[in-house]
Amino acid sequence: MISQTGSFSVATKGKGTYEITDRVHDAVTRSRVQNGIATVFIAHTSASLVIFENADPSARSDLHAFFEQMVPEDMPGFVHTLEGPDDMTSHLRMALTRTSEVIPIQAGRLSLGTWQGIFVFEHRRAAHQRKITVNVTGV
Amino acid sequence: MISQTGSFSVATKGKGTYEITDRVHDAVTRSRVQNGIATVFIAHTSASLVIFENADPSARSDLHAFFEQMVPEDMPGFVHTLEGPDDMTSHLRMALTRTSEVIPIQAGRLSLGTWQGIFVFEHRRAAHQRKITVNVTGV
Amino acid sequence: MISQTGSFSVATKGKGTYEITDRVHDAVTRSRVQNGIATVFIAHTSASLVIFENADPSARSDLHAFFEQMVPEDMPGFVHTLEGPDDMTSHLRMALTRTSEVIPIQAGRLSLGTWQGIFVFEHRRAAHQRKITVNVTGV
Repeated sequence: MISQTGSFSVATKGKGTYEITDRVHDAVTRSRVQNGIATVFIAHTSASLVIFENADPSARSDLHAFFEQMVPEDMPGFVHTLEGPDDMTSHLRMALTRTSEVIPIQAGRLSLGTWQGIFVFEHRRAAHQRKITVNVTGV
Repeated sequence: MISQTGSFSVATKGKGTYEITDRVHDAVTRSRVQNGIATVFIAHTSASLVIFENADPSARSDLHAFFEQMVPEDMPGFVHTLEGPDDMTSHLRMALTRTSEVIPIQAGRLSLGTWQGIFVFEHRRAAHQRKITVNVTGV
Repeated sequence: MISQTGSFSVATKGKGTYEITDRVHDAVTRSRVQNGIATVFIAHTSASLVIFENADPSARSDLHAFFEQMVPEDMPGFVHTLEGPDDMTSHLRMALTRTSEVIPIQAGRLSLGTWQGIFVFEHRRAAHQRKITVNVTGV
């Protein structure tokens, strides 16, 4: 039984989703764990994680458009606006998606479904370096 | 210290919530783990997990109605519509709820609150077989 | 490798966010785990968890205001209203945020980002005692 933790950085180019499935798979492979869990964590409050359909890019376009509509930048009444119109919406979109995800490992592989990918969801307009930490615990 | 992973299938009959608390409890009991964590994972992008009040069914009716209203099927502007009007909304409702949940185990039991149940939240109109994977890690 | 579970209680004073980062840190320190994961779980269906920006209180004010607007108390059509107008909205706000969070531990510390705090999100108007369970698994 081992528990192993490492981090990597994702360079985003502004709002959108960025797939990190392969990098999480790599962490699992390096750990040699056959049976256990992989915890993925994003160390930010204006970007989040989401497990989403990774086959048809139009699904992700609609995801982006939906959040622009549900949590619009020009929402009246925001107080926390010092860093610009995409500041507060970023925190809210993060709160509505995920900061951590835990995925079982079987036979040395993440037990993801056929259409599931793991994505960083960047909520700021500007490019950012986002830190992802992956822990693998198992046998 | 052990880490044990297994899966089961849930037959849904279209949109709604389907309780799986007992099946997760069974996985914990079979593992004989007394102290640790249970990870529940759903391997799909159009169904999700939610821990919700399981005493009064009216709470779940309101949950279903709320999502129909917040993420309606006829939302204008969706591009990802090949599989019908419930396709894209399913992905969005999944992104707004959960793909994984982790529940501590104490004295061989899930440490759920009195009114908490674990549910599969089916977002498609049609019946589906949904795969749930449960990992139990602990002593 | 150990897996250790404990609980503490948070006294809320009605709707709002209550930081528990230090108490989760304490559980990690007491466990002496250097490398692993901390699972935080809230045993309730009308309060939730959220990892949120903890530097500027105005961000949390906007979070509270946003949820009042997105899931208003006077939403027409709710059936589950026996416990008052904040009853059903509490369940929905909980479903839209988190019941569990898992945070990697490195060098004996939670690997949180600079601006990340762990909060109980109370959705009821009245004061409540909320039970938080923390499991620490690692080496």
